[in-house]
Amino acid sequence: MKSRIDRAVDEMKKAGLKQLLVSDPKSIRYLTGIYHEPFERMFFFLLRDNGEHVFFLNHLFFIGPTGFNEVRYSDMDDQMTLLVEQIDEKEVLGVDKVMTARFLVPLQERMPNLKTVIGSDCVDNCRAVKDEEEIAIMKRSSEINDLVMERAIKHAAVGMSEKELADYIDEQYAAEGVVPCFTTIVCYGENAADSHHVPSADVKLKEGQCVLIDMGCIYKNYCSDMTRTFYMHSVDDEQAKIYEIVREAQQAACDAVKPGVKMSEIYAVCRKVIDDSGYGKYWTIRLGHFIGQEDHEKGDVGPNDHTPAAPGMIFSIEPGIYIEGFTGVRIEDLVLVTEDGYENLNAVDKKLLVV
Amino acid sequence: MKSRIDRAVDEMKKAGLKQLLVSDPKSIRYLTGIYHEPFERMFFFLLRDNGEHVFFLNHLFFIGPTGFNEVRYSDMDDQMTLLVEQIDEKEVLGVDKVMTARFLVPLQERMPNLKTVIGSDCVDNCRAVKDEEEIAIMKRSSEINDLVMERAIKHAAVGMSEKELADYIDEQYAAEGVVPCFTTIVCYGENAADSHHVPSADVKLKEGQCVLIDMGCIYKNYCSDMTRTFYMHSVDDEQAKIYEIVREAQQAACDAVKPGVKMSEIYAVCRKVIDDSGYGKYWTIRLGHFIGQEDHEKGDVGPNDHTPAAPGMIFSIEPGIYIEGFTGVRIEDLVLVTEDGYENLNAVDKKLLVV
Repeated sequence: MKSRIDRAVDEMKKAGLKQLLVSDPKSIRYLTGIYHEPFERMFFFLLRDNGEHVFFLNHLFFIGPTGFNEVRYSDMDDQMTLLVEQIDEKEVLGVDKVMTARFLVPLQERMPNLKTVIGSDCVDNCRAVKDEEEIAIMKRSSEINDLVMERAIKHAAVGMSEKELADYIDEQYAAEGVVPCFTTIVCYGENAADSHHVPSADVKLKEGQCVLIDMGCIYKNYCSDMTRTFYMHSVDDEQAKIYEIVREAQQAACDAVKPGVKMSEIYAVCRKVIDDSGYGKYWTIRLGHFIGQEDHEKGDVGPNDHTPAAPGMIFSIEPGIYIEGFTGVRIEDLVLVTEDGYENLNAVDKKLLVV
Repeated sequence: MKSRIDRAVDEMKKAGLKQLLVSDPKSIRYLTGIYHEPFERMFFFLLRDNGEHVFFLNHLFFIGPTGFNEVRYSDMDDQMTLLVEQIDEKEVLGVDKVMTARFLVPLQERMPNLKTVIGSDCVDNCRAVKDEEEIAIMKRSSEINDLVMERAIKHAAVGMSEKELADYIDEQYAAEGVVPCFTTIVCYGENAADSHHVPSADVKLKEGQCVLIDMGCIYKNYCSDMTRTFYMHSVDDEQAKIYEIVREAQQAACDAVKPGVKMSEIYAVCRKVIDDSGYGKYWTIRLGHFIGQEDHEKGDVGPNDHTPAAPGMIFSIEPGIYIEGFTGVRIEDLVLVTEDGYENLNAVDKKLLVV
C-alpha cells in the first residue's frame, strides 16, 4: 500500500499541507487496506508530510496491529484530547469533506487558532486514477453488471411491474455473489423522464413503452454502473429518433476520451450533439461521474470540471433526454482512460433494441 | 408536524440558539415529514427562533411545495452564497453533529466571525421522546422482530452455518415486507464473544454451542432491535450459569426503568448484578442505546449519561458477558418508558432455552 500513501503525500505537498486528517472510511481503506464502519466513533488516519502517520482506533473495532503509529482508545477515554495531542495548531490542517461536525467543531473549540481547509482532494485525486489491481476488479465488476443486464433485458415482459423487474435484477446479483451499489432503477414509459424514479409495484409494462434500467453492483468493494434503454414490442418514430440522438451523443463523448482531454471538453462534445438535435433543453444534468469504491466519487464529467483525463481514470458517460410526461432515454457506460484513448468497461449492445 | 417544530424551537431557546441548521435527513423528516437522501447536495432546514424557518432544496430532489419558506437552487447556482444570505453572522449558529466539512468549512470561510456550535441536541432531544404515532409504529416494528426471531430460533439446526441462519432471517424480514436495519448478527460458540462478529459461511453450528442472534428491522422508517442467546441440544453448567447472570441483570435493569430514573442509574443496577457475580470484567460496554428512525440515536444507557427517563423514550437494555475463546451471552429488549414504569416492546421469552 506504500505507493498509494506516497502519492497522497505528494498531493499534500502540492497543496501546501503538512497534515491531513483522513476520516472517510473508504479513503482509509484505500491508503491502508484496513476498513471499518465507525459510526459515531473516531476512526481517523492522520497523514503527515514527514511520513509520521498516525492511526486512531477504538479498541471496539477489533483491528489488529496496523504497522502504523497508533493511538488506541476506549469509549471511556477523552478522544478529543488524544486527537489534539497529534495536531500541530500552527500548521493548516486538511480535513476530509465528509468529516462530521461531531469531531470538527470540538476540535476547533479546543484549537481556536487552527486553520482547517478541505483537503480530501489529496486522497480523492489518487483514488480517481486507478492502479492495476483496481482496474482488474472494476473490469470484473462491470462484466458481472453486463451479464445481469443481458438477463434483465431478456426477462422484461408486458405486464411485469417495475418493482418485479428490479427485484429480478437484485436476485441475479445475489446469484453472482454481489450486491447492488445503489437502489436498482427500473422505469417504464414516462417514468423514464425522472432520473431518480423509484421502481413501482403498481406500474406494469405496456407495449410500445421504453424500459430504462440503471444498475450497478459492488464486487470486491468496487462499483459498476450502467444504463440501457430499450422498447417493448414496438417503438414509435419519435422515441426511436430520441434514442438515436442519445446514442450518437453518448458514442461521440466516449470517442472523445483520451489523455489530456478535459472533462468539460468531453461534456461539450456530447452537449453539442444534443443541442444540435434540438433536444438540448431536455438534458440539464452532468454527463458523468467518477466511480470506484463509491458509485459517485470526486470528479464530474460536466461543464465546470476542467480536470484532464489521465490513464487509469474511470468515469461514466451517461447522457439522456428526459421529456416529462412522455419518455426518457439514458445510455451509460463506464470508460477507462488508456494511454492512447479509452476502453469501454461495458459490452452490452447499444443499438436501438425492441424486444 | 407543527408540534415537533415547536418542541425543537423550545429546545433552541433553552440552549440559547436563535438559528439552527438541520442537515440530518432523518431530523428533517422528523420535523417536516419530507425525506430525501441528498448525497453531496445541500438539503438543509434552517430553524429560527422567530418561526421564520427556511428549507434549502435542489431542483433535482423533485420535492413539491413544502409549505415553508424555500430556497430552491440548481447545480449551476452558487449554493454557499444562498446559504450565507440566510445566516446571521452575529448570532451563534447551531449545526448538526452530522453536518459535513464539505459545507461547514466553506461556510466558516465565507463568514469568519460566525461562531458555530453543535446544536443537534435540540432536535435529538425531541426525537428521543416518541409521540403516539411513533410509539405505535415502533411497537409494530418490534412485533415483526419478535415474529422473525421466533422463526429463527425454530430454524436453527446443527450443521447450519451462521450465514445461512442470517440469510434465513433476512428472507423472513422480506416476507414480512421489512428490511434489516443493520447487518443481521448470528454467532455460534466463541464467536458470540465478539460483539461485532460477521456471520460466517464456514462456521457450522455444533451441539452444546450457544447461538446469539442480534437483529432488527425497519418498519415505516422506524427500527427494532433485539438479541437472544440460546443453546443447541445441550448447555454446560458454566454457560448456563453465565446465561442466568445476564438474564437476572437484564431483568433488573428493565425493572429499574421509570420516569425520573437516570440512564446512568439504570446502568448501575445492571453493573452491580454482573459485578457481584464475579463476571464484571467480561462486560465493558454500555448497557443500551436510544433508537427510533436510526438503530442508534442520541442517548446512552451508560455510566456517563445522566438523562432522566421520561415517558415516550425508547431504548435498548442489552447487557452481556463476553469471554474470548469461550462464549458470549447477550439479551436485549427495547423498553418504552411509560407514565409509571416501562413497557417491554419485545415478547420473546428470556428463560434459558435449549433447542
